[in-house]
Amino acid sequence: MLKVSIIGTGNVAKHLYNAFFKAEIVEIIQVVGRNKKALSSFGIEEKTTSDFSEIEDADIYVVAVSDSAISAVSQKLESKSGLVAHTSGASSIEMLSKHKAYGVFYPLQTFSKDQKIDFRKVPVCVEGSTKSNMTILKKLGSEISESVHEVDSEQRQTLHLSAVFVNNFTNHLFYIGNKICEENQLPFDLLKPLIEETVQKLKSTTPFNAQTGPARRGDQETLISHMEQLGSLQDKEIYNLLSQSIQSTYGKKL
Amino acid sequence: MLKVSIIGTGNVAKHLYNAFFKAEIVEIIQVVGRNKKALSSFGIEEKTTSDFSEIEDADIYVVAVSDSAISAVSQKLESKSGLVAHTSGASSIEMLSKHKAYGVFYPLQTFSKDQKIDFRKVPVCVEGSTKSNMTILKKLGSEISESVHEVDSEQRQTLHLSAVFVNNFTNHLFYIGNKICEENQLPFDLLKPLIEETVQKLKSTTPFNAQTGPARRGDQETLISHMEQLGSLQDKEIYNLLSQSIQSTYGKKL
Repeated sequence: MLKVSIIGTGNVAKHLYNAFFKAEIVEIIQVVGRNKKALSSFGIEEKTTSDFSEIEDADIYVVAVSDSAISAVSQKLESKSGLVAHTSGASSIEMLSKHKAYGVFYPLQTFSKDQKIDFRKVPVCVEGSTKSNMTILKKLGSEISESVHEVDSEQRQTLHLSAVFVNNFTNHLFYIGNKICEENQLPFDLLKPLIEETVQKLKSTTPFNAQTGPARRGDQETLISHMEQLGSLQDKEIYNLLSQSIQSTYGKKL
Repeated sequence: MLKVSIIGTGNVAKHLYNAFFKAEIVEIIQVVGRNKKALSSFGIEEKTTSDFSEIEDADIYVVAVSDSAISAVSQKLESKSGLVAHTSGASSIEMLSKHKAYGVFYPLQTFSKDQKIDFRKVPVCVEGSTKSNMTILKKLGSEISESVHEVDSEQRQTLHLSAVFVNNFTNHLFYIGNKICEENQLPFDLLKPLIEETVQKLKSTTPFNAQTGPARRGDQETLISHMEQLGSLQDKEIYNLLSQSIQSTYGKKL
């Protein structure tokens, strides 16, 4: 049995809890967090505490808190001999170097409160301070996911940066598309099959080969007409910069 | 029976041909195009021609050519009494106003050569020069799609602009994410579950509510670290501009 405690009560903590709960060889010892209301939503009152002096012994402490809180929260675990692992894409493993055994357990996914996730498909990127810590975290990962990868801190930070482009920025483009539709009384739903197909294409081709549109074709007339249609200065800047980036990718001049 | 001829041999023409071919009350009269090799790929030699003087009578001519060719190509149809419709998102219906009967038949989707599409889910936006032409195009649309919409030229141009944001620009962000992975010997596949979830979320929430990430949280440390990690000046500009746009959307200051 792997005895696991989760420190944190946010979306990552909640989704990890649900995944560990189903895992056969994982026993959840405790969920620890300051937010009592969030703790109560785990539905296991006897195993939760908001008092950091009451943290029980576990094999692994999974610190699923915001990047800026990792340092302060992990200090509360300094007396423990269990492995302390954070779940952050952006933070180095060395943030936890005061601990005897430490590592990283980073699920590369976006988690929302009410959105169910098939955790078996979520890539889990693990890093350990020693080979045996790596082995323990890989074992924990393989209990909840089919996609477990040894990834060092630099690589993980690179993945996190890529993730900002393909997830955060992409979602923001969806927001702009939605806003343009709303401002013109058009249902955003009309664009959803197109959005799905944009992603579907990645199964059979690269984004480089999948690129279409006026910037890719060098269709100046449409580019100018789109710039004129846009009301917001910031949206115009985004349109212009991304069109330029597409054109320089394919060696066309604006 | 609706007698339909397709003018053009590109991806849109090919996908429309496949959809019309399956439709019960549609008879494809001809496929017309200058490119003989492309014509031969339709596999119906007896019904294709590259000689525009050989265009036979049809009820509807679907002009599926690039925006810049619509005007020249449709001139070849001026003697015809059938309804002439282009398939462009960006071009006004008035491009065809020299014809007796004209309209627009715009499938809002991205079409690739080798990618199969379930046309029944593709939104088809139709516009007719008269009510009866609208009715004819709606009938043609409903033969191949469950999602047919009356959309005027201004609305269609707005949809097309939104489509550039959610499809062309999104795909370019995938390209940048892929490039960053490749430059660091990381498999882009690790990001695909995240990309799928980004789109999946749109089924249950708005892009506004789905936004996560360092810009949304106002996490300056990660924003600065990401900027430092980026090698390309253009990627830095994109990172900066999109982060600013997210922050101004949520009323946070950089």
